[in-house]
Amino acid sequence: LQAHDVAMRDFSLDGVRVTDLVHKIWKQVVTAGDTVIDATCGNGHDTAFLAKLVSGEGNQGSVYGFDLQTIAIENTSSFLDKELNANQRERVCLHQMCHSRLGEVIKQKNSVSVVAFNLGYLPGGAKGMITKARTTVEALGCATTLLQLGGVITVVSYVGHAGGREEYEAVRDFSAGLPSDSWISSQQEWLNRPLCPRLFVLVKKDSRTPNI
Amino acid sequence: LQAHDVAMRDFSLDGVRVTDLVHKIWKQVVTAGDTVIDATCGNGHDTAFLAKLVSGEGNQGSVYGFDLQTIAIENTSSFLDKELNANQRERVCLHQMCHSRLGEVIKQKNSVSVVAFNLGYLPGGAKGMITKARTTVEALGCATTLLQLGGVITVVSYVGHAGGREEYEAVRDFSAGLPSDSWISSQQEWLNRPLCPRLFVLVKKDSRTPNI
Repeated sequence: LQAHDVAMRDFSLDGVRVTDLVHKIWKQVVTAGDTVIDATCGNGHDTAFLAKLVSGEGNQGSVYGFDLQTIAIENTSSFLDKELNANQRERVCLHQMCHSRLGEVIKQKNSVSVVAFNLGYLPGGAKGMITKARTTVEALGCATTLLQLGGVITVVSYVGHAGGREEYEAVRDFSAGLPSDSWISSQQEWLNRPLCPRLFVLVKKDSRTPNI
Repeated sequence: LQAHDVAMRDFSLDGVRVTDLVHKIWKQVVTAGDTVIDATCGNGHDTAFLAKLVSGEGNQGSVYGFDLQTIAIENTSSFLDKELNANQRERVCLHQMCHSRLGEVIKQKNSVSVVAFNLGYLPGGAKGMITKARTTVEALGCATTLLQLGGVITVVSYVGHAGGREEYEAVRDFSAGLPSDSWISSQQEWLNRPLCPRLFVLVKKDSRTPNI
């Protein structure tokens, strides 16, 4: 086994690889038929990946995708049209609104297996349009309620842009405040790449998780 | 898939689980016949795990185990006698000396696939006898030289005992200083369990690792 394969499995190098690591975690958690949320559609790559994971044989599984920017919703929609088959494409419902309002769209508590956040600005878009600490934390609060037992919230958080560090610290404080009897709250960072995004993995424990 | 299984795979809860996570990483890296180092034998659990991983069909594979304390070497030796078969047991050579001196025992550069550190005090032993920042960093320096391309250094670091935080910060600074073109340097922590050990995973990149 070479370092390259190791890096692909459990730890990683840079933005691209952190995304690969996140996909691997979702794969472990999502079952066909699940409901999941992409809280930051961006250009739609994660939305498409999630749509493939939730698509079963029948018309089951749902991806709720959110983004505030028109261009992000348009980019995601075109990418899904190109990337997905008809059944997979029908699984996805896109909402142009702030992810802090996701509780207005999905109302059922304990009903989703993944909530995905990839923070910062739209790759290729206006760098002034960024996710922000206050609304990100509001969205995380909603996500904790909507998540089912055994479900996972993943947050890819960037510190290299203006406002990034503040948002990262807000996510870290939120994660540190989750009660340890019901949440696993893990953060991973790449120390010799200070601008590499950090990864938060928040698992809502189920009854089989030992309480230590 | 339940939260329990997820926790066992890529992130974890507490000391016991961090150890399980570390074992999983070693499994991905070690091939039968490899040479590996347990820089902190303690009660020998990691030493035994590594001995099983390196043992091949013939008399191949080596584990070099280090601990400064007589009681640790004795405990490890008895545990290995109980836990391993004769071939596995013969793979292990124990050295009662400070791990900062491991370069005196293993001289060949780029020759080991894993160097394992589990810092702090001996479980069940005297809490005054702890690994310390200066010698731990010296040992890490040796380890980086001895490690082969594609090899991994794992460090489980505790912050809950006197001197722990200082040692943790020294390991973090050391890890952050590894050149990013030749090392992946990752840290994972569990945010809602402040006394949970943190895990460092340092991978010496080989030529197949993309340089980004």
